[in-house]
Formats: sequence, structure tokens, C-alpha cells
Amino acid sequence: MGIRTIRGGLTAVDGIQAAGLWAGIKPTGTPDLALIVSDRPAVAAGLFTRNQFQAPPLRLTRRHLRAGRLQAIIVNSGNANACTGAAGLRDAETMARDTARLLGLPVTHVAVASTGVIGVPLPIDRIRRALPRLAAALSVTGGRRAARAIMTTDTRPKEVALEARIGGKLIRIGGIAKGGGMVHPNMATMLAFLATDAPLAAPLLRRALAQAADQSFHAITIDDMSTNDLVLCLATGGAGGAAWRANGAAYRQFRLLLTEACHRLALQMVEDAEGGTKIIRITVQGAATAAQARVMALAVARSPLVKTAMYGEDPNWGRIMAAIGASGAAVRERDVSIAFGPVTAVRGGRSAGGAAERRAARVLRDRAIPVQITVGRGRGRATIWTSDLTDAYVRINAHYRT
Amino acid sequence: MGIRTIRGGLTAVDGIQAAGLWAGIKPTGTPDLALIVSDRPAVAAGLFTRNQFQAPPLRLTRRHLRAGRLQAIIVNSGNANACTGAAGLRDAETMARDTARLLGLPVTHVAVASTGVIGVPLPIDRIRRALPRLAAALSVTGGRRAARAIMTTDTRPKEVALEARIGGKLIRIGGIAKGGGMVHPNMATMLAFLATDAPLAAPLLRRALAQAADQSFHAITIDDMSTNDLVLCLATGGAGGAAWRANGAAYRQFRLLLTEACHRLALQMVEDAEGGTKIIRITVQGAATAAQARVMALAVARSPLVKTAMYGEDPNWGRIMAAIGASGAAVRERDVSIAFGPVTAVRGGRSAGGAAERRAARVLRDRAIPVQITVGRGRGRATIWTSDLTDAYVRINAHYRT
Repeated sequence: MGIRTIRGGLTAVDGIQAAGLWAGIKPTGTPDLALIVSDRPAVAAGLFTRNQFQAPPLRLTRRHLRAGRLQAIIVNSGNANACTGAAGLRDAETMARDTARLLGLPVTHVAVASTGVIGVPLPIDRIRRALPRLAAALSVTGGRRAARAIMTTDTRPKEVALEARIGGKLIRIGGIAKGGGMVHPNMATMLAFLATDAPLAAPLLRRALAQAADQSFHAITIDDMSTNDLVLCLATGGAGGAAWRANGAAYRQFRLLLTEACHRLALQMVEDAEGGTKIIRITVQGAATAAQARVMALAVARSPLVKTAMYGEDPNWGRIMAAIGASGAAVRERDVSIAFGPVTAVRGGRSAGGAAERRAARVLRDRAIPVQITVGRGRGRATIWTSDLTDAYVRINAHYRT
Repeated sequence: MGIRTIRGGLTAVDGIQAAGLWAGIKPTGTPDLALIVSDRPAVAAGLFTRNQFQAPPLRLTRRHLRAGRLQAIIVNSGNANACTGAAGLRDAETMARDTARLLGLPVTHVAVASTGVIGVPLPIDRIRRALPRLAAALSVTGGRRAARAIMTTDTRPKEVALEARIGGKLIRIGGIAKGGGMVHPNMATMLAFLATDAPLAAPLLRRALAQAADQSFHAITIDDMSTNDLVLCLATGGAGGAAWRANGAAYRQFRLLLTEACHRLALQMVEDAEGGTKIIRITVQGAATAAQARVMALAVARSPLVKTAMYGEDPNWGRIMAAIGASGAAVRERDVSIAFGPVTAVRGGRSAGGAAERRAARVLRDRAIPVQITVGRGRGRATIWTSDLTDAYVRINAHYRT
């Protein structure tokens, strides 16, 4: 199956319209309200933050998603509507109800998401006033504007659009996302909205999305897990034909396509990490299990000492060793090898020599840094993407309110 | 029992001598080799990093400690002798053997510790050459010089000396420590050496030290757990009298004294955290268990978003809520209250209002910031100390090799 990158982002999928505008939530005057609408009720699946303090819009969306059908997604940035209690839930309900009324949909076909500062009441009146304008602005080329309207500390919109021939049909998938701060496995303040014209029933879409997320959104870490993370995928079935079977070739190929779309959105989040200057790919192989490999990769990816060393372009493998040793996963020192790009700097738990370290330092000058860690002869393998830890990260987060 | 602060640091304890000098390990010319000697074989207890890649000096010291007796500790900074394999172990053995020979002690009565850059062979010849000078410099006022010689990125030496009347005798305890980077529960690159004249058998000293560490060294977090952390406590018995019983009042009082000494050294590590400008005390109370309280307090203390907000003097309680919710510990949003110093900013999971937040912001201008988190009505309680995350932390760690 050949996967082709196409134009159009989320709205590359037939029957999907989107819009974004400034409703007056952000003081900066930049877009803060987005709407995504399918021309028919779509099969829908979602993934929610595992933070115990789920924001009211997520609690509402989870409820609406029970029937596995959605037709519209209303999203605001600039305010997370989190830790806002009963009033926050009423505000989320108002967003859904007003949107449903405007579009003539059942309210349960509307999903709601919010991102931004926590604990501040949502300026719901501004959102209500902006909704008619937003609905009027819906367009089959509005994906980019919606992508802009969900940004918080992102410096650029995040989009993807792919197509592939599956089961004799040209299947498309498009998506938008926001990342930046609070990005961590199990959904941090990460929002992603995808749509496809593939024909799938809800249980299968849910399964495909969960597997795709494991290799994309759950494989990146910037800092924390937030209260508002949400990934939604709509499948309109617009490509036609009967819904794919669970074990058929079409479903398996679609899963690869969805994984690729999610992966590209997730990488854009890491590329645009707050203050980041590097995209670091940490692969651990040779572990007893994939879970153990993941524990080690995450320990390395989260280590502020490793992340500052990458910023300093220092192949400081001692800090990587220390992070692996502290991870809790079972590993023997003498089984560890570490390579930066093509340069093996550690072999058998020891330095491969000064010349190798100098070559590794040159690898670290690149923006994309592959770190390959081998910890034994097991078959467990995991990859985590992260960014470096920089002065700019500190400045942004010391002075921006999430 | 009244605890009195006295002068003299580690060498405030009768019979303890110490010295420190530059052996040529650090390129900076600052002291890098320390020696601590008791005038008699002392009862000894130790705590070791739980990092799986324990450095060779720690593996040696653990072996020598089996009999529960030590008379000398030789420590170098500037090189961790970690991830150095069989050669590293030979170097640690050489340090112990040369020290033992110089002082006329059995080699198993000598402990070895190292801290500094990982993965670089120890310049053992320089250490061997410096040892006679170091032994000749031993002095009953040498505690400060030893404290200086174990520093890495520390900006000042860390010392404590206390006395208290226990069981009719004046008991003294003294100690030195180094912290800075890689400080995290279960021993990060944290070294602490204590001595007391209290009469205790080894099993009791071990128990007291483990309990004291839980409330001090294991209650601070700066970043990671290193390969080289070590706490050693020598009990000379010089105060005289029979060894204390396990359940007697004297032992209980000594435990408080030892805890206070460890606590003061641990706080000095946080105060001198790399680039830190704040000392943040995070207390969680009302949890189901103390372990759950600790999980939540650690999650908050480790959050880069919380730590940068503290640096920015922003009472950004939303990030604290998000960290608690993401910690994995069981808690309901509406049960959470958060106070900065005397100012309650969150009550029942909601903002206590703009005026409270403005008052909280004023609390954050102080260097010492108490954060009190109540999560329900349970009896579980834990306190963790940490520092803020600053531009300076990033600069130090991007360009210093640990």
C-alpha cells in the first residue's frame, strides 16, 4: 500500500468542513474557536486523557461518544474549562447545545473540547455570540483555519492529509492537532481531530485509533499529562462500500494509514515543543519485553539531565546510563550500547573512546537526533520522541499560564 | 530533648579528623579529594543508590560495610568512576588499599566514594600521589575542607553539627554533604557522610539511618537518581556507656537527632540546587495512605510546568491540579485544596478567587515557598522539598558534564 501526502489537511476528506475565528477568548486577538462538521453523521472514536481531573468538555464528549456517532466538533483555545466544576459542565453543555441548534443536529452528535488556562471560568457568552459567524464560515478549505484556532503556545498549525488505495478505493484521512506544553503519553494538552472517508464500524475505528495512538501520541513526551487531552477520529464512510471486517486486509491497511497520520501529527507536536531546538528519537531494543523497553525509553526521554545535554549538543552518555539504571527496568550495565545516529558511543556499558564521542558530538549538531539504545538480547523494543530542554522552555513556562 | 546547633561540622565529633585538597582530578584546581578518619573502628551504616548501575566505589564500599565497621572514608570529586567496568573496580580497590596502608588499617575498614563525570577512567595515579599529603593534613578542624573537596556543581559546602543530651550524655553528630544535580529520592548524586559519638550497634544504626533518610534525603527531588549516591554514618561510641537498646528512650531521641542532621544536609542540597532560586516545600495531606500522599507530592515536585511556574512566581494552581490528577494516586477533584503559605488559592477543586490568587502571588516572591495540598479526609501525609526550574539550571546542565 502506497501512502501519498496530499493537500488540504482535515478538510481534504470529502464531506468535512471546518472554520476558525477569534471569539474574544484570547486577549491576543488570535483565533480561538474552531468548528469541524461532517455532512453526515460519522462513525466516531475518541481517546481521552487519563488524568483523573478530566475537564468538563471531555466528560461531556465522552458521554456523547457512547453511541459511536458524531457530526460536529466545537473547540476553543485560550481557556481549558478545567477545574471549573458544575458551572464548567454547564458551559460545555451550552457549547454543544448552541452548536447543535445552529447546525440542526441532535446535541449528542456534537463533541466539545477546550484547551488553555486551567481554572478560569469560560467566557461562554463570547463563544455563544461567535457561533453563528463560525457556522457561516464553514468551508471545505477551512482545515487550516481550524488548525490555527486550536493553538495555544504552538508556533504553527499542525495538519496532515494522506491518501492510499485500500480495498480498491481511494481512502483519505486528514487531521489537525495542537501540542506544545503538557505533552506526555496518555494524552497531555494535546488535541487531535482526524477525519476519514473510510467505511468502518465504531468498534473497529476505536481499535484502530488506540493502536495508532500507541505508536504516535503515546510515544511522545514533552512534560506533563494534562486535564484536557483528546483525540477524536470521524469516519464518514464517504468512500462507499460495506464497512470493513475486523480481520480483513483493508482494515489492516487502514490501520497503517491512520497510524501514519497520527504519527505525523505527533511529530509536529515534538517539532514545535515549547522552546525546543531538537527532535530526539529514543529507541530501546533488546529488552525483555516491549513494556520494559518503553519504561527505559521514557526514563531517558523524561530526564532533564539528558534533555539539557542534547540542548548543549553534548553526547553525555553517562546521563543516559544513569536514566536507564534508575528506570526500574531490569538491565545489566555490561549489556548496554548507545549510538547517536550512526556513531556507537557506548559498547558493553563502557565508552567506545574519545574519537567516537567526538564523532557523536557532530551528530548532535543536527536538529533530528536518533538515539539507539541496546540493552540485551531480548525482543522488546520501543521508541519515544521528545524535545530538548532549553532556556526558552523555561522562559515560556515561567511566564505563560496554562 | 533540646537539639543545639554547634560549630565544627563533621569534625565536631570527638575522634573524627578530616582533610581535603586538590589532587589534580578537577581541571579547575579546586579541592577534589577528601579523607575522613575515626580514631577507632566505628560502627557504620550506609544507604546506597537504587540505580541499577552502581558505580564501582559503591560496590566496594557495600562489601566493606558488611561487617558493620569502618574507620576511614576516602572520597574524590570530579570523576564518578561510574560505567568504568573492571578497571573502575580496580581503581576503587587501589584507593581503599593505599588509604588503609597509609593509616595502618585493615582495607575492609575503608569506604570509597566518587562523584563527578560518568564514564571517564579515574586518574588513579594522581589520587595515589596525593594520598600521603592528604593523610598528613588530617585535622580535628578539617570538616569544612573535606566538605569543599566533595563538591561538584555545588556552589558552597554543606555541613551540619548538632548536639543533644541523650541518656544523660551529651551526644554529638556532625556531617558533610554534596548535592546539586541528579538529586532524587533513593539517592541521586548525593553524598553525605555523618559521624556521631553515640553508642549504637550496627543494626540499630542502620535502622535509624534508614528512617532518618526517609524524612530527609528521600524527601527531596531536583532531577534524577544517579549511579553514585551514598550516605554513610559512623558511630564511634566515644560518648561512652553501653550500646543503646532498640526500644529505649535514648535510641528514639538519637533517631530524632540523626533525622534533624540529615534533614539539614538535605535542605542545603535543595537550597543549592543547580540554578535554583526557590526552596519549595510540598506537603500533601488527607490522602488514603502516606504512600499515596508521597506519590502526589512527588508528581507535583517533579513537574517541570509547576517548577517553572514557581520560578515565574506565578501561583499557577492549574498545573498543580494537573500534576495531582496525572499522578496515578486516587483523588477526587472536589476534595482538593491548595494553599501557598497562609493563602488558600484553591478550595474544593476551584479557584478561591482572584483576590486570593493575587495574595498567593505575593507569597511566591519569597525564597521559601510552602505549598500545602489537601486531597481528602484520609490520614496519609507526605512532604517533599524541591527547587524551581530556571534558565540557569538549563545553562549549567547543557554545558557541564556529569
